[in-house]
Amino acid sequence: MAVAGPEIERLIQLLARLPGLGPRSARRAALHLIKKREALMVPLASALQVAIERIQVCKTCGNIDTQSPCTVCTDPRRDPAMIVVVADVADLWALERAKASNGRYHVLGGTLSPLDGVGPQDLTIDALVQRAHAPEVQEIILALNATVDGQTTAHYITDLLQEANVKVTRLAHGVPVGGELDYLDEGTLSAAMRQRTLF
Amino acid sequence: MAVAGPEIERLIQLLARLPGLGPRSARRAALHLIKKREALMVPLASALQVAIERIQVCKTCGNIDTQSPCTVCTDPRRDPAMIVVVADVADLWALERAKASNGRYHVLGGTLSPLDGVGPQDLTIDALVQRAHAPEVQEIILALNATVDGQTTAHYITDLLQEANVKVTRLAHGVPVGGELDYLDEGTLSAAMRQRTLF
Ligand SMILES: [Zn+2]
Ligand SMILES: [Zn+2]
Repeated sequence: MAVAGPEIERLIQLLARLPGLGPRSARRAALHLIKKREALMVPLASALQVAIERIQVCKTCGNIDTQSPCTVCTDPRRDPAMIVVVADVADLWALERAKASNGRYHVLGGTLSPLDGVGPQDLTIDALVQRAHAPEVQEIILALNATVDGQTTAHYITDLLQEANVKVTRLAHGVPVGGELDYLDEGTLSAAMRQRTLF
Repeated sequence: MAVAGPEIERLIQLLARLPGLGPRSARRAALHLIKKREALMVPLASALQVAIERIQVCKTCGNIDTQSPCTVCTDPRRDPAMIVVVADVADLWALERAKASNGRYHVLGGTLSPLDGVGPQDLTIDALVQRAHAPEVQEIILALNATVDGQTTAHYITDLLQEANVKVTRLAHGVPVGGELDYLDEGTLSAAMRQRTLF
């Protein structure tokens, strides 16, 4: 497709590498940007430039921010006794949107996955163990996906933390809020039954 | 959500305005860009800047390109006798990918839509009528969607072109290549039957 010239073709190819956009929607996105030149393309180019210049990874927890240590790590209202371990910054954001925790975070950068060649050295597990030994830390909350890889990672970390003087916890299994019982798998249902709470 | 600061929030909001990306996938796209800083975010910012500086709308046909008149309009191998009328540049690209025509194009900028307040003055219909009167033009091919708005637009243009010395044609209806008969509506099936061709 050389109708529109190499400049647009390059823009489409880069947009197609964003998660959620395939080749077809990348073409539509490129056209939309070109049509909304002043209202969207110029502001997006500038927002990307700002991000390129200012965004960095927090050296403490792995969150992304315009400062390192990040806003969460330096917030005095955060409880330094709890570290919530997540696989990815997206999970950190999700927990923050849910206001699920007042602790600090630790972003692993993924989960252990022998099939994909992801081993402990590819994640920030060493740094987590080191943080867990700090005197103020009392609880490590493993907020990892309830998948095989997520749970393998949780077990691996739990083993490593046995020497540290911390409580290791994980998220409860159960019925999602708004979830219908007959759509849930048996493992979730029996976990929800075992971990039932007083009404 | 003020975890990641206003810079990332702004990037997410702009990405969410791209067709195909909702708020959730815009967050994932922003994270992906930040993680792939050198491999994706920097090249995308630069491709957008190039597009901002160089892309323009062809003054003849409405195509977008880095030159006006565009590459299609100035290509001497294109048949100047045929003008393919499309609603949008995306349709022009689709026809070019299909190598469906060797003619030139005319991009209307949409279709007539009384419900959405789109009237003839919002489209490049006047310019099309003017082009249709050029001595070299023999056929106007209406490559518009087979929707109510598309067909209303086709009828409106056909009426206007009655004074011009051109043949006005439209795309055939029929069974899509690879399409299964029992998934097609009755209108398509009877059109395909009426317009059947020799095997
Ligand atoms: Zn941090
Ligand atoms: Zn043109």
